[in-house]
Amino acid sequence: MLRVVIAPDSFKGSLSAPQVCAAIARGLTRVWRDAVVVARPMADGGEGTLDAVLAAMGADGCRATGTVTGAGAVPIVAAYGVITQSEGFTALIEIAQIVGITDPGGMAAAVGDRSTLGVGELLKMLLDRGIRRFMVGLGGSSTNDAGAGMLAALGVSLLDAQGGVIAPTPIGLAGLARVDASSLDARILGSDIKIMTDVNNPLCGDQGATAIFGPQKGVSGDDQRRFDAVLAHFAQLAETALTPQAARRAADAPGAGAAGGLGFGLHVLGGTIAGGADVVAAAIGLDAALAGADWAITGEGRSDRQTLLRKAPLVVAERARAHGVPTTLISGGVDAKALPALGEHFAGCFALADGPMALAECLARAEELLADRAEQAARVWDAARSRLS
Amino acid sequence: MLRVVIAPDSFKGSLSAPQVCAAIARGLTRVWRDAVVVARPMADGGEGTLDAVLAAMGADGCRATGTVTGAGAVPIVAAYGVITQSEGFTALIEIAQIVGITDPGGMAAAVGDRSTLGVGELLKMLLDRGIRRFMVGLGGSSTNDAGAGMLAALGVSLLDAQGGVIAPTPIGLAGLARVDASSLDARILGSDIKIMTDVNNPLCGDQGATAIFGPQKGVSGDDQRRFDAVLAHFAQLAETALTPQAARRAADAPGAGAAGGLGFGLHVLGGTIAGGADVVAAAIGLDAALAGADWAITGEGRSDRQTLLRKAPLVVAERARAHGVPTTLISGGVDAKALPALGEHFAGCFALADGPMALAECLARAEELLADRAEQAARVWDAARSRLS
Repeated sequence: MLRVVIAPDSFKGSLSAPQVCAAIARGLTRVWRDAVVVARPMADGGEGTLDAVLAAMGADGCRATGTVTGAGAVPIVAAYGVITQSEGFTALIEIAQIVGITDPGGMAAAVGDRSTLGVGELLKMLLDRGIRRFMVGLGGSSTNDAGAGMLAALGVSLLDAQGGVIAPTPIGLAGLARVDASSLDARILGSDIKIMTDVNNPLCGDQGATAIFGPQKGVSGDDQRRFDAVLAHFAQLAETALTPQAARRAADAPGAGAAGGLGFGLHVLGGTIAGGADVVAAAIGLDAALAGADWAITGEGRSDRQTLLRKAPLVVAERARAHGVPTTLISGGVDAKALPALGEHFAGCFALADGPMALAECLARAEELLADRAEQAARVWDAARSRLS
Repeated sequence: MLRVVIAPDSFKGSLSAPQVCAAIARGLTRVWRDAVVVARPMADGGEGTLDAVLAAMGADGCRATGTVTGAGAVPIVAAYGVITQSEGFTALIEIAQIVGITDPGGMAAAVGDRSTLGVGELLKMLLDRGIRRFMVGLGGSSTNDAGAGMLAALGVSLLDAQGGVIAPTPIGLAGLARVDASSLDARILGSDIKIMTDVNNPLCGDQGATAIFGPQKGVSGDDQRRFDAVLAHFAQLAETALTPQAARRAADAPGAGAAGGLGFGLHVLGGTIAGGADVVAAAIGLDAALAGADWAITGEGRSDRQTLLRKAPLVVAERARAHGVPTTLISGGVDAKALPALGEHFAGCFALADGPMALAECLARAEELLADRAEQAARVWDAARSRLS
């Protein structure tokens, strides 16, 4: 009996990964009533990671909430997950739940005034509950503070030249003269922190957090250069104060620039930066689902060369290949220029549109189009199989 | 070795059928270097029919031209084909070459003044050369004269109440009182005429030539009702004059309304109306190409419920199925509402767009997108096959 694993990322701005799974499954069942269809919603560490992992965990995962400070200092009720594993509890934090770019309370403040204080507060709450294992999904943040807020909430003192405490924000950090880590919560340094991100950007410079992700958060004009310099200065002091040896180059680590530099902040706390999709794939047991499967189907909002940078579809295709399973890609759009490269990983790349159409129509009809595209790809598969049998 | 037959219609307004074949073949060879790819450009009797048939005929077909009267009375150099077969010569006439809607000389005249005189002139020239077998492809005409011009050129007198000769046009026919077929070229009645069309419309009424195809030719307002009545009157007189028994209901025959009623005019001359794509499929030897093939790929500019009315892709799928060969459809657009019905005939229906895009972009990138879509479908096919082997 044919066994198909559906493991797409969400289609951002349109469908969640579980919705994508359901639409694809609907299309497949039009062709095969007797196929075994296994849905494993994927994520890349950003928005949707919590849902994807909890969905796969079943009774071993639970969803909880904590009230912490939002990016704009307005309290926010943030969801997080607690996973029970043989090695103990692991907390799964999706920082978009705390300082998300879609949170009106955070976006009401200027980007120069936003901070990741709430992330540190939530970590502290979880430390208080005995949790020492963390998976932190970066992505979708409205902040650009290099994790200064988080560090402050965990006990790091950020001081100006007169010894006064400054605000852990891009604007506050402009007055930073000293970082004192002597009061840092020691429990966090003894914890296991997996930092999940889907970007490789360093903290500063041309490819840094401010330059690349700043504009979409509201950083403009002179502030871009100014904030970048402020974060570089902060990083230097923080690295020295926190981990004199190991983290001396934490700001240069690929992924340090994720989530407005929160990647850096977590990295100087000893966290290891990993590809978000890889961590999620492991967490949701993707390998077990792929073992013995005939076909995998993945997808995302738009596929291009970025997809090859270990985005969810690529990770699915790689793991599937390890099991001898071909993977087909169905995305909202597929960049024609990237097709030759994508073709090395995917057994067929398909876009949603069934003719010339505007983006708005494509978004509005996304579920229907997804089901149709999956059905049509399945019909080709079916024809090829029946031709041989 | 995998054997694939590519048999698409043209993508109207964008690519000829041979261009479509070449683009699809290019995509397939990216996946399979060793596949045997057989191109059989299809057509539906309309524009492109001549090229498709001549391409398949090779040395047995030749292209010739004749200068005749265009729809707007401006002389036009019309291409036609002569096919050498065991049963003798057959002339292949594509009426779009004579009274085509893309001919500026014809379109410069008002639709009420256009006639199919040139079609009759060409038939006469060919009769003079001894040809007695004709395949006439309807479609793409600018005329709406029910073939009155053609009949006049072949010797039928169209007279007013005073016995004066009227113009064989919608406006001239308004004064028609008598049709005299006594001087009709007898050679045409002894000829074999295959009328190729892809529409089933009768000559007159709600579904008639004037109502359905008139507007795109410039028939508007009151003229629609008026021309329809004029053609009905002409048809009644012509049927009686030409074939008192057999053709009494020629105006009601499905396809009589094709090419502004030229279907009717040819039908009263004893021509048999057939599906254009069926006739072309037979002429190009599609069955021989499909025998022993593994996969067929077809397509057209846009696929919808109309496709099921024996358009080229449907005919390809039917003939392929008779040989046990699955057929995949790649079209400029695929109507989502028609997918369930199309799914009964096609092993996968794909559109060109690789994301949201405007029609203009889709047209401009048609060849590239076609190659990409064919490649991606082939990758699914390949994956399904390798999974079994």
